Amino acid sequence: MKRGEIIAVGSELLIGGRLDTNSVFLSERLGALGVEVRFKSIVGDSEDDIVTVLTTAARRAEIVILTGGLGSTSDDCTRQAVARAVGRPLRRRAEAFAGMSARLAAWGRTPTVAQLRQTLIPSGADVLANPVGSAPGFSLQWNGSFIAALPGVPREADAMFDAAVVPHLVTVGTRDDRRIERRLLHTFGLFESEIDRQLSDLMKTYRSIELGLLASPLGVTIALTARAVPSRATPLDRLVQAVKRRLHRHVYAEGDQTMEDIVGRELAKQGLTLAVAESCTGGLIGHRLTQVPGSSRYFDRGVISYSNEAKHEVLGIPLALLRRHGAVSAHVAAAMAKGIRLKSHTDIGLSVTGIAGPGGGTVHKPVGLVYIGLNAKTSRRFFQDTLTEEFRFHGDRHSIKMRASQAALNMVRLWLKDMAIDRVHA
Amino acid sequence: MKRGEIIAVGSELLIGGRLDTNSVFLSERLGALGVEVRFKSIVGDSEDDIVTVLTTAARRAEIVILTGGLGSTSDDCTRQAVARAVGRPLRRRAEAFAGMSARLAAWGRTPTVAQLRQTLIPSGADVLANPVGSAPGFSLQWNGSFIAALPGVPREADAMFDAAVVPHLVTVGTRDDRRIERRLLHTFGLFESEIDRQLSDLMKTYRSIELGLLASPLGVTIALTARAVPSRATPLDRLVQAVKRRLHRHVYAEGDQTMEDIVGRELAKQGLTLAVAESCTGGLIGHRLTQVPGSSRYFDRGVISYSNEAKHEVLGIPLALLRRHGAVSAHVAAAMAKGIRLKSHTDIGLSVTGIAGPGGGTVHKPVGLVYIGLNAKTSRRFFQDTLTEEFRFHGDRHSIKMRASQAALNMVRLWLKDMAIDRVHA
Repeated sequence: MKRGEIIAVGSELLIGGRLDTNSVFLSERLGALGVEVRFKSIVGDSEDDIVTVLTTAARRAEIVILTGGLGSTSDDCTRQAVARAVGRPLRRRAEAFAGMSARLAAWGRTPTVAQLRQTLIPSGADVLANPVGSAPGFSLQWNGSFIAALPGVPREADAMFDAAVVPHLVTVGTRDDRRIERRLLHTFGLFESEIDRQLSDLMKTYRSIELGLLASPLGVTIALTARAVPSRATPLDRLVQAVKRRLHRHVYAEGDQTMEDIVGRELAKQGLTLAVAESCTGGLIGHRLTQVPGSSRYFDRGVISYSNEAKHEVLGIPLALLRRHGAVSAHVAAAMAKGIRLKSHTDIGLSVTGIAGPGGGTVHKPVGLVYIGLNAKTSRRFFQDTLTEEFRFHGDRHSIKMRASQAALNMVRLWLKDMAIDRVHA
Repeated sequence: MKRGEIIAVGSELLIGGRLDTNSVFLSERLGALGVEVRFKSIVGDSEDDIVTVLTTAARRAEIVILTGGLGSTSDDCTRQAVARAVGRPLRRRAEAFAGMSARLAAWGRTPTVAQLRQTLIPSGADVLANPVGSAPGFSLQWNGSFIAALPGVPREADAMFDAAVVPHLVTVGTRDDRRIERRLLHTFGLFESEIDRQLSDLMKTYRSIELGLLASPLGVTIALTARAVPSRATPLDRLVQAVKRRLHRHVYAEGDQTMEDIVGRELAKQGLTLAVAESCTGGLIGHRLTQVPGSSRYFDRGVISYSNEAKHEVLGIPLALLRRHGAVSAHVAAAMAKGIRLKSHTDIGLSVTGIAGPGGGTVHKPVGLVYIGLNAKTSRRFFQDTLTEEFRFHGDRHSIKMRASQAALNMVRLWLKDMAIDRVHA
């Protein structure tokens, strides 16, 4: 396989303030195109340091992608660094100016003096038009390596990658027609070590496939990577099926799908509507559900009942119930789920109440204690109309909120799954 | 200044699935301790590749920090790679076992066979106890470089950095008692290019300070970095004050403070309460407000009124108003803000209604059109009780939601600021 390297340029990536998100999709895309990325580097807005990193990368790899440092502000110096590393002078290029002017004109603007700097391109390089922003990129061949400089803005880097790198790889071909294939399976409710143990014999059968496990507040993601597989037959699909069978209901999504995608798709498919009553998650479940385009078809409303008054006034929770069991209790979670469902006339009501911390915990009700409730309109046998579950989450306020929102959406997912199975058997 | 390098190990960082967040705080902390980080590398779970990167880094830097690859699963190989790079065999170490057993015992667990691998440490290295997790780390001296291997989990890496790297740097001292100082100023409502232009003469006066600008849906962050400054006097504070004066109300926060921190602090200070009515942001404003510990003091409740029925039923918006102006209108934003304030008996009601896309836009009401409303109980002169503002945001669904939530919180911030000024003058 061809070797690729990615260099992310920007002091803000080096000393904090921003994470390099470009290299994630770039290496994914390169892998699918038959280029293996084994090293990534991050370097500041320093001409010398970019030259150092670029020289090392070009020695190791046939494809080198730089992102960032092409802007109009005074700190941007990728253009100068590449020109110096490959020994070609910067030249003002008419195509670069034309493309930038056209883009700015569409926004009702004209190039500023500072922006004219962006039309300086190493001599002999191909100018890459920016279909979504104003900064032009460029690509060139040097000592057997193909070097492309793309903007730091993800949407722009993405568009330019398609315009510059894909055609190049198609022209030169991938050396041996092999590529990297990868599948992601997202699980909820299992420890990393448990998954590792459960899959160990399977992984011995598929020796050419690498297993990676990645824990986060959203669960554990299983990454299965087959390197240098021939373009056609692959044992990866068989392994994915085997893992899904083994981990069963714990696998909630694949690839770039999220829990909210899956829950939304299933709600839409079954023609059901949902409303949420959130206490400790503070709106996060509503936010996640509405990240999915078209969610208005099944998501009706949410109530963030942070105070007890809100729980009483908006959801109709009796004050006596709040006093007797406390706001963080299975009783109140059940009442919240029922309350929001009745108030909103939806098919399902979902609720969360808990202690996100760092304050507010007691010996009996520690930080991380969360109750989730689900109430549904159903006349089916074997289906309770109210479910509640108790969780004890670890971590800081943010991760407790994330875990609680994931557990709540997972409860809806499993309920919908059972409902679908029940329908088939009915 | 001493030179440092950071190496993040993990195939999931290389081919996607996770971003390297450790290196951000590590380089920040190293900078404050007098170590300049100029290069970061990301490498997969491959022993050969870790050896390559570590060897290059140790040639360039006096301090090399590795994170990740210390887990118990089969893909973790940082221990082996460091041992091979520095030419020392791995040895099972009693301290490593004792620390791990004690940690697991606190969780009611005992080490598994797989976890025993984690007690293998390069001979002669110092074992670093993990105060929050089970994986031990280690540090050693090699060819004039100090090398520390820390876990990949951010909380664990952080704690071990304090335990291992800080004492080392204190012992050896920073060569010339110089360090990197950095200040972040977060702005909202200005373009990057506008800020660059407005600050250009100031930056010429402070030639030793670097300016970095970073645009995101939350606004533009200004990073001011002074390299190799003497430990005492610094012109950075003077520049920060000058920038704040110049950009005035556009600077909403500094350092690691967020918009929600600032809004929350000011609400608490003025003893005011807030409720929100969200349509297109879907709960994101509530989620952000409740990310702040102690937010229950001023955040009472939120309503995610996604459907028109919810706007009518929960907030009391007349159906005629919704029909006449449409849900996405200044009239409805104003009515939502007033509705949520009256229903929740808070001092301030905040509302957002808009089109997050990608569907739902028309010629007159395109995707990205957002109205924000604020309604407050006030009897003060010069203060309107209702404010509305129209925005046209660019970007995808997620960034339109982020921008809208930021603009809404910023409206509350400015209102609170004017209120505070008015109080002083009253």
